[in-house]
Amino acid sequence: VLAAAGRLVEEDGYGRLTIEAIARQAGVSKQTIYRWWSTKAEVVLEALNEAASTIAPAADSGSLEADVRLFLRRTVEGGKGRNGRMLVALMAEAQFDEVFGRSFRREFLANRRNMLRNVLERARTRGEVAQSAHIELAVEVVFAMLWYRMLGRHAPLDRRLADELTDTLLILVG
Amino acid sequence: VLAAAGRLVEEDGYGRLTIEAIARQAGVSKQTIYRWWSTKAEVVLEALNEAASTIAPAADSGSLEADVRLFLRRTVEGGKGRNGRMLVALMAEAQFDEVFGRSFRREFLANRRNMLRNVLERARTRGEVAQSAHIELAVEVVFAMLWYRMLGRHAPLDRRLADELTDTLLILVG
Repeated sequence: VLAAAGRLVEEDGYGRLTIEAIARQAGVSKQTIYRWWSTKAEVVLEALNEAASTIAPAADSGSLEADVRLFLRRTVEGGKGRNGRMLVALMAEAQFDEVFGRSFRREFLANRRNMLRNVLERARTRGEVAQSAHIELAVEVVFAMLWYRMLGRHAPLDRRLADELTDTLLILVG
Repeated sequence: VLAAAGRLVEEDGYGRLTIEAIARQAGVSKQTIYRWWSTKAEVVLEALNEAASTIAPAADSGSLEADVRLFLRRTVEGGKGRNGRMLVALMAEAQFDEVFGRSFRREFLANRRNMLRNVLERARTRGEVAQSAHIELAVEVVFAMLWYRMLGRHAPLDRRLADELTDTLLILVG
């Protein structure tokens, strides 16, 4: 069901997506879908979160720099091509569709910040990040840059950006 | 004409805007508009740039910190309320409409980065910014954060953000 929802959003956009189409594409009944999710937004958000956690899980190697670098390289990889086009379309949709927008912000954007915040907080308990460090701002800078590149397209979303953001984040929490 | 275009985008959105409606609202003929602009995108972008330069001109007080703080406080003020909603709608539109998107990126997003880059480059000639400083990245961080707040709405676009971004920028070019 989640894979079917992802494919349909990619092909037709979120606006034209229906629970019925997801059911047809997944080869299940509408009732089956409604047993687990109540709106198409919920299905799409769960698909997004699952994909994001698979592509870029929060690593835990014991080294802040290694964890952040891996997380950001994978996040950047996951934001390229079709995934990236889908994310951008959903971010645009979130500005017009209030209901979807609320879910997208709370259940996707906030989740991704949580993943990186956890990495930084683990590093803080190990003493790698100062108690006074402004973790929230550093996390925001990272995702802000990824989105600005995806939406603004003035420079590529690539490994170089991932590494620049890793360095920037270490400066900001250092 | 520019004010008329701004009002119409605010009221009906960019998608429904026509040169004819701009002419009617401004009380001029379509021919007059076509003498100066060839598409509605050009009119809207010129209106946006004019508004942005009026609200947040690049200050030149001789102090980097003062110039950046003023520029960012004004930029944040200018991105609130109706202006902010219009900017967000245009950023979303830029993701769906390729022609408008190209103009929006080249003639608005890039212009705003240029304004701040100039402030930093003037500071570099005065010796306030290191020759090796990564100015481009610092400029990108600032606008990325403003856009991420406007689109993500997880925290307010306020003077506190402007001041945090001023400090962040000084750290990044310091």
